[in-house]
This record gives sequence, structure tokens and C-alpha cells, in this order.
Amino acid sequence: MKTIAFVTYPGLTALDLVGPLQVLDPLSAFRPDEYRTVVVGEHTDPMPSDNAALRVAASHTFEEVPDPFAVVVPGGMVSTIEAMSDEKLLAYLRRAGETAETLASVCTGSLVLGAAGLLEDREATTHWAFLDLLEAFGAKPVAKRWVADGRAFTAAGVAAGIDAALHLVATLAGEDVARQVQFGIEYDPQPPFGPLNWEDAPRDMWQAWRATTLKEGTADAPELARRLGVTSA
Amino acid sequence: MKTIAFVTYPGLTALDLVGPLQVLDPLSAFRPDEYRTVVVGEHTDPMPSDNAALRVAASHTFEEVPDPFAVVVPGGMVSTIEAMSDEKLLAYLRRAGETAETLASVCTGSLVLGAAGLLEDREATTHWAFLDLLEAFGAKPVAKRWVADGRAFTAAGVAAGIDAALHLVATLAGEDVARQVQFGIEYDPQPPFGPLNWEDAPRDMWQAWRATTLKEGTADAPELARRLGVTSA
Repeated sequence: MKTIAFVTYPGLTALDLVGPLQVLDPLSAFRPDEYRTVVVGEHTDPMPSDNAALRVAASHTFEEVPDPFAVVVPGGMVSTIEAMSDEKLLAYLRRAGETAETLASVCTGSLVLGAAGLLEDREATTHWAFLDLLEAFGAKPVAKRWVADGRAFTAAGVAAGIDAALHLVATLAGEDVARQVQFGIEYDPQPPFGPLNWEDAPRDMWQAWRATTLKEGTADAPELARRLGVTSA
Repeated sequence: MKTIAFVTYPGLTALDLVGPLQVLDPLSAFRPDEYRTVVVGEHTDPMPSDNAALRVAASHTFEEVPDPFAVVVPGGMVSTIEAMSDEKLLAYLRRAGETAETLASVCTGSLVLGAAGLLEDREATTHWAFLDLLEAFGAKPVAKRWVADGRAFTAAGVAAGIDAALHLVATLAGEDVARQVQFGIEYDPQPPFGPLNWEDAPRDMWQAWRATTLKEGTADAPELARRLGVTSA
């Protein structure tokens, strides 16, 4: 049985977790003898997501799923930068990384994979406002919707996890199954104002948010702050 | 303060809840004096989602949020058909419906709104495989990504909730804010095999799933079974 482990930590972006989970979980229905999906965490009590009103709870502890076939690491803002110094989380990823065939992330989740030392010399991506930071961990930043390089499979910001997960389902179970899943979740996107025009990206606003995020997230982690180029005021 | 209440019940489809939540929750950051987001349920303990591995927990009980500005009802499969006979849930929706300015749903969540008597004579939509069932509650089924008719604002299957929520943010706070949110969650969809080709929809498979879903979901609700045209074997 191949176990796909979605990794949780307090404050993660809920859609980073649930988008790919809703796409990958059907593998356990289409291929019940081959795949199972779990949500792992330091504990199985409810923990806050980045949406103040929503808490999520893991199905298994890290200890219960030591050798997953794949891990998927969601991203977030301040909490994710803090997670980059969470030794229990990093130890889990390193241990899983010894045997896992896929090390996946959504959004800034790739920075956590990087902090665990799992992206060295790999092409990788993350949320557009944080892309260059991947270099701090020896990864090669690529501005794509998703990037596969060896075992590393990283998706861009938040909603990119849905596209990336469909690609992963096709890789694991074939394009026919991926299409069934796409029909099931009616993923036939119609953003009301069309696709994003990247010339209009609110880069100044995000530069400010990013600075605050990195400063707050590394307040107790001076070494990480140096590595990420966070300057003290 | 206008409260947007996401309604939970055991077994809901997680992405129906989290997709729109991730889009609408930023309203409380962009317009902190005007909007707040809550997740309401019969209780605030963790409850299962349709993904066996993920539990979610509400922030407030139904009693704590009696008069929301808007409700958003997620859908699902068997559990959602069962929810159509959940008198506590229906009573909450009817009570909220006395004053709420928006009665929203994602996927088969519109069937729950219908069961609460809130869609009579309204155009509405739902997951493509369940669309005709809206007629059982006096609604007029429309095969669109989302449908606004008076207070009723219903989205098609699962992922349609993201598109619909962006439209709702634009309505509530303007298109500029909606675009900021779209950049924030990097919603620039690139389904790996392109948009859905509806001629290829797996209608036979879903017809079978639907029959099972309706039968199991109405096992203890003979009146609802008759209304939905469920025939006993």
C-alpha cells in the first residue's frame, strides 16, 4: 500500500491542504489496493488553519506514518516561516525523505522542504512573492505552475496545488483517472475576471507583507533569518 | 459587522467549504470593520469530511450565529443527502434565511437549501450529476458555473465554489479586492489536460453513484426519498 501523507502544522493555508487532498484522495477509491491518503501531524487534535474560523485535524501522528510513499507539504504565511524552524516537523520530513518517492509541496510549503534540506540542486517553485527565497536552500527557483525535478514536485501559490495534484494523479494512475477526478470535482475553471495578468500583480503590497511575514516568522530563529536575508530594523 | 457563516455537517466535501472560505475570508482583512467569517456547526468538535483522513472543526455553534449576513452551504455525497433530513441544520438555515441577504451553496449544498424551502421559484444550480433534483424543491435548475437569483447564490460542483466566491467578493467589496484575492491565492488555473469536454462526462458511472448515494442517503427518510424519486429495489 502506498501512503500519500498530507503534512499539517498550525496556521497552514487550508486550501493548500484541501485542494490537492480532494484531487488525490480519490486514488484510494479508484485504486483501493494501491493507495491510501492520510493527514499527518505532531498530534491529531484540531489545529488552527490560516483561516481564523477553520480548524483542521490530522488522522495520524508523524510517528504512525514514518515511511510514506509521498508527502505533500502545504504552505502559508508567518506560520509557515515558523514551521521552517519546527524541528519535529523537519525531522519527520527528513525521515520520510529517506524513502519517499515523491516530496511534494504547495505554495510556500517548498520553503519547508528546503529548510529540511530536501531541495538541494533541485528546480522548484513556490508562491510568486517568495520565489527567490528558494535559493537560500540550494534550490533553483522556476516561475512555473508546478515543477517536477527528480523526487521534488513543487507547486506555485495556493490554487496551483489543484493543477499540480491532477498532474500527479495522471502520473500515478493514468490520465483517464485524472479526468474522472476532474469531472468529479467539476474543475472547469471560469475565474470571473479571467486569468491573472501578471503585469498587474500587486508586488509592492506583497513586498511589504513578505517583509513582515519573514520578520515575524523568524523572530525566534536568528540563523534562519540570516539565511533568508531578513535584516533587523 | 456582516457575518459570513460557512455551514458544516459531518461528511461535507472539504473543498466545497475551503475553496470559498479561502476566497471570502480575506474580506475580513481588506474590510475588517465590515466583514467577519465564521464556520458554524451543531457543535465545535472535529467532524469528518468526505476525505476520510481530514476532520474539520467549526468556530461557532449554530446558536452563536443566529442571524448571519450570508450563509454558505457546502455539498457532498451520501452525507449531504442525509443532511437534507437533519432538522437542526434545516432549522438553522430557515432561521438564518429570515434575515440573511445571501443564501449561498456549493455543489449539492443547494439541495440542502432546497430542502430548507429556501429555493422555491429560484433559478439555481448544483453538481452536474444532480442538477434535475433541484426541481423537487420548486427551484429552476440552470446548468451554469454559478447562478444568482435574488438572495439565492448557488455554485455548480466543488471547484465552482472558487469561481463563485470570487464573483461574490467583487459584489461585496469591488472587483479590485477580488483581483487582489485572486493574486493572493494565485488562482490562474492551468488544468493539465485543459478544460472539461462535457461530451466526455462519465455520465453512466455517475448515474450509478447517484442512485446509490440517493438510496443510502434517504434510507431513514422515506418522504425525502419519494420527493427525490428514489425507487426501492
